[in-house]
Amino acid sequence: MEFSKINEVLATTREGQLLHDLMSMLYPICRSITGEGVRETLRQLQQHVPLEIREVASGTKVFDWTVPLEWNIQDAYIATTRGERVVDFRKNNLHVVNYSVPVRGTFKRADLDGHLHSLPERPDWIPYRTSYYKENWGFCLTHRQLSELNEPEYEVCIDSSLQPGHLSYGEVFLPGATEEEVLISCHVCHPSLCNDNLSGIAVATYLAKVMQKIVRRFSYRFVFIPGTIGSITWLAQNQERTNLIRHGVVLTGVGDSGNVTYKRSRQGNAYVDRAITHILNHRVRAHRVVDFSPYGYDERQYCSPGFNLPVGCFMRTSHGEYPEYHTSADNLEFVAAEALQESLEILLHAIHVIENDARFLNTNPCCEPQLGRRGLYRAIAGQKEGAQKEMALLWVLNLSDGQHTLLDIAERANTPFEVIHAAACALKECNLLEESRGGRP
Amino acid sequence: MEFSKINEVLATTREGQLLHDLMSMLYPICRSITGEGVRETLRQLQQHVPLEIREVASGTKVFDWTVPLEWNIQDAYIATTRGERVVDFRKNNLHVVNYSVPVRGTFKRADLDGHLHSLPERPDWIPYRTSYYKENWGFCLTHRQLSELNEPEYEVCIDSSLQPGHLSYGEVFLPGATEEEVLISCHVCHPSLCNDNLSGIAVATYLAKVMQKIVRRFSYRFVFIPGTIGSITWLAQNQERTNLIRHGVVLTGVGDSGNVTYKRSRQGNAYVDRAITHILNHRVRAHRVVDFSPYGYDERQYCSPGFNLPVGCFMRTSHGEYPEYHTSADNLEFVAAEALQESLEILLHAIHVIENDARFLNTNPCCEPQLGRRGLYRAIAGQKEGAQKEMALLWVLNLSDGQHTLLDIAERANTPFEVIHAAACALKECNLLEESRGGRP
Amino acid sequence: MEFSKINEVLATTREGQLLHDLMSMLYPICRSITGEGVRETLRQLQQHVPLEIREVASGTKVFDWTVPLEWNIQDAYIATTRGERVVDFRKNNLHVVNYSVPVRGTFKRADLDGHLHSLPERPDWIPYRTSYYKENWGFCLTHRQLSELNEPEYEVCIDSSLQPGHLSYGEVFLPGATEEEVLISCHVCHPSLCNDNLSGIAVATYLAKVMQKIVRRFSYRFVFIPGTIGSITWLAQNQERTNLIRHGVVLTGVGDSGNVTYKRSRQGNAYVDRAITHILNHRVRAHRVVDFSPYGYDERQYCSPGFNLPVGCFMRTSHGEYPEYHTSADNLEFVAAEALQESLEILLHAIHVIENDARFLNTNPCCEPQLGRRGLYRAIAGQKEGAQKEMALLWVLNLSDGQHTLLDIAERANTPFEVIHAAACALKECNLLEESRGGRP
Repeated sequence: MEFSKINEVLATTREGQLLHDLMSMLYPICRSITGEGVRETLRQLQQHVPLEIREVASGTKVFDWTVPLEWNIQDAYIATTRGERVVDFRKNNLHVVNYSVPVRGTFKRADLDGHLHSLPERPDWIPYRTSYYKENWGFCLTHRQLSELNEPEYEVCIDSSLQPGHLSYGEVFLPGATEEEVLISCHVCHPSLCNDNLSGIAVATYLAKVMQKIVRRFSYRFVFIPGTIGSITWLAQNQERTNLIRHGVVLTGVGDSGNVTYKRSRQGNAYVDRAITHILNHRVRAHRVVDFSPYGYDERQYCSPGFNLPVGCFMRTSHGEYPEYHTSADNLEFVAAEALQESLEILLHAIHVIENDARFLNTNPCCEPQLGRRGLYRAIAGQKEGAQKEMALLWVLNLSDGQHTLLDIAERANTPFEVIHAAACALKECNLLEESRGGRP
Repeated sequence: MEFSKINEVLATTREGQLLHDLMSMLYPICRSITGEGVRETLRQLQQHVPLEIREVASGTKVFDWTVPLEWNIQDAYIATTRGERVVDFRKNNLHVVNYSVPVRGTFKRADLDGHLHSLPERPDWIPYRTSYYKENWGFCLTHRQLSELNEPEYEVCIDSSLQPGHLSYGEVFLPGATEEEVLISCHVCHPSLCNDNLSGIAVATYLAKVMQKIVRRFSYRFVFIPGTIGSITWLAQNQERTNLIRHGVVLTGVGDSGNVTYKRSRQGNAYVDRAITHILNHRVRAHRVVDFSPYGYDERQYCSPGFNLPVGCFMRTSHGEYPEYHTSADNLEFVAAEALQESLEILLHAIHVIENDARFLNTNPCCEPQLGRRGLYRAIAGQKEGAQKEMALLWVLNLSDGQHTLLDIAERANTPFEVIHAAACALKECNLLEESRGGRP
Repeated sequence: MEFSKINEVLATTREGQLLHDLMSMLYPICRSITGEGVRETLRQLQQHVPLEIREVASGTKVFDWTVPLEWNIQDAYIATTRGERVVDFRKNNLHVVNYSVPVRGTFKRADLDGHLHSLPERPDWIPYRTSYYKENWGFCLTHRQLSELNEPEYEVCIDSSLQPGHLSYGEVFLPGATEEEVLISCHVCHPSLCNDNLSGIAVATYLAKVMQKIVRRFSYRFVFIPGTIGSITWLAQNQERTNLIRHGVVLTGVGDSGNVTYKRSRQGNAYVDRAITHILNHRVRAHRVVDFSPYGYDERQYCSPGFNLPVGCFMRTSHGEYPEYHTSADNLEFVAAEALQESLEILLHAIHVIENDARFLNTNPCCEPQLGRRGLYRAIAGQKEGAQKEMALLWVLNLSDGQHTLLDIAERANTPFEVIHAAACALKECNLLEESRGGRP
């Protein structure tokens, strides 16, 4: 399928519910930055896309960091001395502090205090806590559960292991006409959390599914990695490849019903920043475009000064700006099929810009060509849509001097890229436009 | 007369009514893109200014276009079978679709339908329609007239001719101290329409009359051309001269009582754009300055990418933004002598900037010179006007480092150019300023 | 004392009242552009700072100007023919027009008219008038006094002298690690006026006192000069040194209780402009930053095109925007110790930026370094202050690519310079940052 026809491409993606279904499959898995949870998640994705699983051994030096031990967990609970489980990992994997060291024993209630985490202001929600880089253990529970822990002693068990193993990540590579790459990155290290983690995984997977079917100008690399240590590991292992990355985006929190937020790359006005901003301006009523800051997701690593890659971050409501963030309330009900679908479509529109932009030369640059005798004015009897198409023809002719790309023209004309692109195609067919040498952005 | 003295120049132009009188003379003539109507119009202008009429033969190739056949018309009407004229070209030349092919015969009422144009929402106005590049014929009439055409048959006559001839245009060239040119362009192809067409002709003519009397730095070229095909023809015939054009403006719709609109050249910040914007900011309370877009008047051709000339468009209410546009209501009452006068004055002020701007060097650049002992502070006893003049002296001294022109200084000081220019003249007389080499903008 | 520790430096300056006391000492002296009043003022400052007094002979050519005669005054009065003084210089030195030529005699009341100045709209205030460059004499008095001058004749005496002598100015030079200089300039030519003149003298003196105790990167030059002719003289005498001036500020009107106003240098975005603007944005709720204009104080000379030095003007309420300006109401009550103190602190903060800014290189530019194992995340348990410090670490790491100075980073992170600077110090201690060669701004 030619990506020049954005409407045909979009017609194949009316599948918000399928994205939600994929999330439902992945939801129960207990992921962490290493271990079987990530591996199992990646294996499920292999049913959808040609994903390769990479393993990097614990202890491997990755820049200033070291690949950590592999964490696996079978079970965890707090039980009464009568054997009744009052906090149970099998009911919700958020109940255990992620990356907890193994523990087994009888504890006085008072000695548990520093190991119990709840949210007094949200008494029915379980918080999500981790302790990756400091050995520790703990339980997360609802504040209601906590208030009922009134017995003098409890049995505590965390049946986990921390052993040399591997950090696992997944990669889907779709070669294009050029070696130059578009990088799509999402994190896969959160357990039963939906918007933060699964929504990005689902949108990235379906984006890859669509892009597989497309005649691609760029090569596309989708990476499914644990947050921070995963992108650091990927960059350490692929340092020499990064100079091929032309455009990139980190996907996170793309399933809630809030407004879209796009965070610019460190470069600030990279092509991907302009392309996504353009699409948001023309397609999405309420949205925010914010400047880069060195806090957030894996764009922190891609945009570190040694790389400074053109990679932004696409999300809906920003992390920390919705109360469900990092709690059990970030569940399957919190994400909506329509929101997933819209996120996917915005990204496809942005890729449509990236794939189809070019610099053209007006072959008749002195005065306007006579469009009427070429049938380019014909069907345009004053209706609004016709007027926009006609203006697009005039804009493309006027600015196709080898200096302006179609996105430049779309920005200056304040007209959707797809309308400008369609005008350029029509003019090229009439030989009124030819592609400018050395001109693809 | 020296143009440095803008007030003396303006004093010669208190003649808004004379501009309106000229329009009244030209109003009855049936102009089109070719033919006797244009020629007669240009001949009348020769009574005011040294205008030369150029003729370009039908069939001449002009870039992507061809000079069309010459259209002339003697008479046209729709009459009852009893000989009573119900639509009559002799009453208003808008009644015939401009460039209609000849027709003569008896038509069933129903067969006339596709050839009759009216404005239901303005039942007393006659619309203006043309069919230049597609052979056709028709009549324009008030909706009231249309509703009375109830007879079964009508006599129809359009006594026109379409034959090889010429496209005519007029040119007034006023040589200046330099070969570099200022281009003033207006269109002359509309029949009895006042704001759209005649107002531009009248202002351009009187601007030429004033400029004739002035000691000119630049050469001035006024072109009176049919719209689109005329500017294309002129550019094709004068392609090698266009590199002499330093500043230019298309005049259109400069007689209505609405606010002034200035549309920037494609370059966006050409000197003419800055000069006119400056004058509007300081002299005209309500006005708009809008960006270039490739729709409008002959600036479309001057600003096509093969030329990209510094030519903007000066108008009052934009075409299409007033209901009288392209109807019989754009008549002599619709244009006002005061509006014509104001348009002329704004243009003269802008030319004052263009003619008098220069870069100067402060001959005493280290610290301020002692203005008091040169009498430059004298008459300034605290009154408001004096303070502005004194500040102007300080601004000119401070910024005359060879980098800033007087317009740069006027912009930065937020002070009218004429005040800054007067300060520069006073300082030059005291030898505190000398003209910078290579410095005229 | 190291200036890197801004809080320790500020702790030594809790002395707003001391500044006010200094002003009280200087208040009675009758200063002018030349004469004993200036000399006596400078001698008093020598008790605080190592100030050298320079003398430039009358008649010396200084650019377009000439150093004037020295003016001294013993006494002046208007008395009744019975010997009763009704206007008395000994009561307030504003009563005599500054720089008046000597006069002695009996005058008809009517003949005094052109020599008497009052403020009808402020009947209890004495205006301040001068006549430096035109020989003249006169008295300033309250409008109430003027209305009581009803006798037919008065005795008039101005016991002044205008003789060849010197123009005096003071200079405090504090050498630093580099010859490059920071210039602080204030005027010393006004008699008993507090905000206009004494406030600048007091803040400059105490700024010099603090800077004496500091390990300085830059050299500091404080000049205490008569307005206009003093800066012109200083520039003429030091023309070859001016290329060492990296940053500078004129101090004037820094003691009233109004909001701070900073007027940018002619360069508009000089480093000093950015540094002071940054401090005002982060420390001072209500303030104004205005563009350069060639009217005001000695910045007019420093910013003349032959010098174009990076010198702004720091003030509180602008001259002419408060009614007390240039009247006897600009007295010791009009200036407040708190305002003087705040002005001093803002300047010290700006100097902190100037002294400590640098470009750094992140020694671990590929991905973030692991801050946790270096204890840099430790104390940060979610409290607001901690979050700002942590973000500052991330910003400094992210932007320390040799392109950005700490002020650049502070501006982009919208974070106070001192927080960014502290983060850089902490990172440098961990060897995560090294100073970039050739990098100090």
